[in-house]
Amino acid sequence: MTHLHNIETLSWIDGENFENGHLRMIDQTLLPTQLQQIECRTIETVWEAIKMLRVRGAPAIGIAAAYGVCVGLQPLFAEGNKPDENEPGEEEFFKKLTDSLAYLASSRPTAVNLFWALDRMKTVAEKHRGSCSTVQLAEKLLDEAKAIHDEDRRICRAIGKNGAELVKNGDSLLTHCNAGGLATADYGTALAVFFAANEAGKKIHVYADETRPLLQGARLTAWELHQRGIDVTIICDSMAAMVMRQGKINAVFVGADRITANGDTANKIGTFGVAIAAKAHNIPFYVAAPASTFDLSLEHGGLIPIEERDPREISHGFGLQTAPDGIRIYNPAFDVTPAELITGIVTEHGVIMPVNRENVLKMLAPC
Amino acid sequence: MTHLHNIETLSWIDGENFENGHLRMIDQTLLPTQLQQIECRTIETVWEAIKMLRVRGAPAIGIAAAYGVCVGLQPLFAEGNKPDENEPGEEEFFKKLTDSLAYLASSRPTAVNLFWALDRMKTVAEKHRGSCSTVQLAEKLLDEAKAIHDEDRRICRAIGKNGAELVKNGDSLLTHCNAGGLATADYGTALAVFFAANEAGKKIHVYADETRPLLQGARLTAWELHQRGIDVTIICDSMAAMVMRQGKINAVFVGADRITANGDTANKIGTFGVAIAAKAHNIPFYVAAPASTFDLSLEHGGLIPIEERDPREISHGFGLQTAPDGIRIYNPAFDVTPAELITGIVTEHGVIMPVNRENVLKMLAPC
Repeated sequence: MTHLHNIETLSWIDGENFENGHLRMIDQTLLPTQLQQIECRTIETVWEAIKMLRVRGAPAIGIAAAYGVCVGLQPLFAEGNKPDENEPGEEEFFKKLTDSLAYLASSRPTAVNLFWALDRMKTVAEKHRGSCSTVQLAEKLLDEAKAIHDEDRRICRAIGKNGAELVKNGDSLLTHCNAGGLATADYGTALAVFFAANEAGKKIHVYADETRPLLQGARLTAWELHQRGIDVTIICDSMAAMVMRQGKINAVFVGADRITANGDTANKIGTFGVAIAAKAHNIPFYVAAPASTFDLSLEHGGLIPIEERDPREISHGFGLQTAPDGIRIYNPAFDVTPAELITGIVTEHGVIMPVNRENVLKMLAPC
Repeated sequence: MTHLHNIETLSWIDGENFENGHLRMIDQTLLPTQLQQIECRTIETVWEAIKMLRVRGAPAIGIAAAYGVCVGLQPLFAEGNKPDENEPGEEEFFKKLTDSLAYLASSRPTAVNLFWALDRMKTVAEKHRGSCSTVQLAEKLLDEAKAIHDEDRRICRAIGKNGAELVKNGDSLLTHCNAGGLATADYGTALAVFFAANEAGKKIHVYADETRPLLQGARLTAWELHQRGIDVTIICDSMAAMVMRQGKINAVFVGADRITANGDTANKIGTFGVAIAAKAHNIPFYVAAPASTFDLSLEHGGLIPIEERDPREISHGFGLQTAPDGIRIYNPAFDVTPAELITGIVTEHGVIMPVNRENVLKMLAPC
């Protein structure tokens, strides 16, 4: 399955051995004017790419982190270490694994898919501990990362299919930030709904909030939709309420970075304001996210850690300095939309509607 | 009365005669990193300054336009034309005046203060038509422009005083765009409330929405508040709802560009979304504006013409290109907040509260 321009958001480039492979990704900070890829051959490069939003979007961060674990283990198998003669011992392997997991977990705090993917990697290693060589363990971890990647492709298609049923021919839809192919393996969550509706022959138009401060809506969502031939209009975040009042929005679809047991949803800063405006205009507000975005260990959204980022993203975002020197700036990267403002949550298993603890647990039970 | 750095937003530099004076203004597009002034010696320069937002804010636009009329008449009295020997005839004078009024009225469509100021200039000229020389008419027009300017100083102080009574010691307040000294003669409308509260010894903190696309909040409001020693924190427009939910906002104060008879208020794009979020959190939402901002000829906000501006303000705002080529962009400069979302309107005559047609007319009756 290929991505836009046949370039995938993330791809593992296999080498002759485990230690020769590496992670390749689009550097999303350069879009839409430059389409460049980064070759990640060290765990530090992966960490930096996640931290600096070269790769972003909850599912994509999870995939990148899983591959990042593999990249982190590679130095143990460095050239000259013949697998059968001189492979690392189990203790050394697990020490390195533990360090790699902790390091990658420190990159970004809010999207739970990161921790979910790292947990899957850890679980696989522990399951096979003692029953195979460390070379084999490393290969099983790479297989697991590839499985997470492949599953995400299938999950995104299922989300698109489930969500498209909520979209009518002729609908005008609003989205915030980017929950598209660039935020996932290749098809998106919120944007998957638009892609699937479009592929099903429904004519739609999308308003994309530009999404300050880093403009993922203007830079990434508009680019993806345009590439796929879907009509898109960029607006500033502050224009969404007016466009709703003008009667131009039939429904809102956004992604998610963490959803708690009661359905409260952390997503890109600004999502909460969009949800309030949608409610005020009686416009359905949908979240689209895979089961891996749910954190059932948290009862409500007030418990989700919210990342605060560098103030310079706001004061020096795209060229000129746009705030006075020495001014205080508050830059939370996410906000929490309470469940009562969410009409439904579209998952790969179906749509949770109405959104409450009981329905969340029921939908996720088979997972 | 002096402005920040002793530099006034707008000032008329008197010459030896009517035709030697000119309008000087701060070029607000260069703030906060450069504090530069423009010398406006032609009506085209004044028109361009209004159009390009070198001067902006409803009251300041009105003042600039009034002086602009004088600058527009100056060529009639050009060097070599001795006033008593060769002054322009009345017909020529009124032709030039009519053209100047129409030209300046074409600069920006939404802020009614522009048309209000031009009407005042026209009324003065017509009142004295036939009873004095055209040199004297020109001087009366300059006096009227100076009167508009001076009155605005007094009005802003009165708005500040009336609004400050709504502010409590320790309050944390939110504002959107810039309704400060840079938007008026020198003290502001919404920011006048903060200045007056501060001068009355009330300790306040202000959150300033950065205000996309042109960032008047980050560039101008934060700068003005910081200059006057008021604690200010810049946030992106999309963060206001979250900050409200965190309990950090006690009240919202914004300016206005046009207020209709029922209290519906056009103001900088994004104001409506802030008002919806304030309502959802039971936070008082106040508009601060002079009587000249009311347009009683319009019954409701749906009748206010809304300016749409160049899409490049969004796609190429401050340096780098941040949207794909060929993408549709919608860029309305204002939105309308319906009266039912407005707790009160602070004018120089007092506070209109609750906001409805009856109370608007009652407050404006003495004008």
